[in-house]
Amino acid sequence: MRVVTSVAAMQRLAMEWNQSGSPVGFVPTMGYLHAGHVSLVRKARERVGKRGVVVVSIFVNPTQFAPTEDLASYPRDLQRDKKLCRGAGVDIVFVPGNPQMYPAKPGANFSTYVVEDALSRGMEGLSRPTHFRGVATVVAKLFNIVRPDIAVFGAKDFQQAAIVKRMTRDLNFPVSIIVAPTVREPDGLALSSRNKYLSADERAQAAALWQAIRQARQTVRASTQPIPASRLNSELKWLIETRPAARVDYIEFFDPDTFQPLAKVERGAHIALAVFVGKTRLIDNGRI
Amino acid sequence: MRVVTSVAAMQRLAMEWNQSGSPVGFVPTMGYLHAGHVSLVRKARERVGKRGVVVVSIFVNPTQFAPTEDLASYPRDLQRDKKLCRGAGVDIVFVPGNPQMYPAKPGANFSTYVVEDALSRGMEGLSRPTHFRGVATVVAKLFNIVRPDIAVFGAKDFQQAAIVKRMTRDLNFPVSIIVAPTVREPDGLALSSRNKYLSADERAQAAALWQAIRQARQTVRASTQPIPASRLNSELKWLIETRPAARVDYIEFFDPDTFQPLAKVERGAHIALAVFVGKTRLIDNGRI
Repeated sequence: MRVVTSVAAMQRLAMEWNQSGSPVGFVPTMGYLHAGHVSLVRKARERVGKRGVVVVSIFVNPTQFAPTEDLASYPRDLQRDKKLCRGAGVDIVFVPGNPQMYPAKPGANFSTYVVEDALSRGMEGLSRPTHFRGVATVVAKLFNIVRPDIAVFGAKDFQQAAIVKRMTRDLNFPVSIIVAPTVREPDGLALSSRNKYLSADERAQAAALWQAIRQARQTVRASTQPIPASRLNSELKWLIETRPAARVDYIEFFDPDTFQPLAKVERGAHIALAVFVGKTRLIDNGRI
Repeated sequence: MRVVTSVAAMQRLAMEWNQSGSPVGFVPTMGYLHAGHVSLVRKARERVGKRGVVVVSIFVNPTQFAPTEDLASYPRDLQRDKKLCRGAGVDIVFVPGNPQMYPAKPGANFSTYVVEDALSRGMEGLSRPTHFRGVATVVAKLFNIVRPDIAVFGAKDFQQAAIVKRMTRDLNFPVSIIVAPTVREPDGLALSSRNKYLSADERAQAAALWQAIRQARQTVRASTQPIPASRLNSELKWLIETRPAARVDYIEFFDPDTFQPLAKVERGAHIALAVFVGKTRLIDNGRI
């Protein structure tokens, strides 16, 4: 396994792989890796085979954090990340620095963004207004630097994955986007680097997100008729907020292709939710 | 010479060239080609050599026109364009259709844009608010489809060339941007497909743009001190508007690297201007 820290070196390697015809699988991450990330790496390896190259990027991307958010405190542990990558059979860990990714030169600061304008409007886009602009921009940059054939994203960030797919189609990146299933703790909590923020007490209460998703699924599947989203919404909010540390940011039911909110919920709809547990904001989603 | 109309076919060819290591030179155009475009093609050939591939795209890009602008009437003559390309030694003419470039599917319309946010603010960006968003977006798309090593843009669209350079740097496209000099008629009028709109009378008056640039240069170079931009501005406006069909949209003096407007003009500054001659909007620029 090789660690690359320079954008130019990474891009040179990528061009060599393009020329030699080695398929490249890519897993972009913000580091502090967990079993969810490892499952994405496995998926990448599955697709590119033994002869292919698997690249993991580790970059806590500042442009996807608002000034009020947790950029400074976002957990980092590069030594552990490298060990996990080595164990997972990663070929290249790409760890660029901020000044390389976002040049700040007097009179010539970084000034170009990729903006997705339809799928980004609701949910995370509403709660975190410049978040997806930052995500789309850094993914476009990383695609140009790593030049992958396939890239793997986690289903936990469902809206993000849809936006990356849309951006890839719209801007004609020759990259296949694969969305891999969410990995969960035994009690259903979706793995996330931000789970580290939770106290033991909060950690127990955080299972509420997954319980809400299951509850919604059961209610809808048990019914012979579609169920009003507003009714489900209040039931789930109540269910979640019986945990004293939990406060719902949003719960939304929508068409998983168009992201249009649904007034009535039936099988095949999608639920996504964001919940503060203490000060930690967690998200999750699932098919109804 | 081969004419390619499908995005997928063009991208397949591009991937083959990447693999075989053939350098690719690219000249994106909106067609209705003239000697200015031919000079860009020559520059591309110069750079990639005989073994390289030269691609010209012809696409009247709707996203860079405002609803009030001349998209529908923009001159088109594909047969003549092909002949010119053949004569200039072009290998591939890429002529994609609108529905391929901007998919419109119910619930999944095209929705991703590339936005440059600093150099785009003044001049053309001010007069044509969504113009550069359209330009940056289509150039990003074309770079992903054609995957060139070098791309050539004309200096006549000076601000556009700077924005394309910035976008290429910021999004890490592995493409060298070359800016080739403006080709002019004997009386100094910059070649432009839009010159076709001019009546004989307007055509004669259109030389005023170039005369204004030369006048500014002479005034500044004859002076031992910097000259206030406001003074130059009124002088040139007067000079241009003595032509009855001419009306100045803007005249601006700025630093050619940062695009910051200058209050005082000296050698090395840049001038850009936009002038309506009759109903036709013409632009030009030059170093002072």
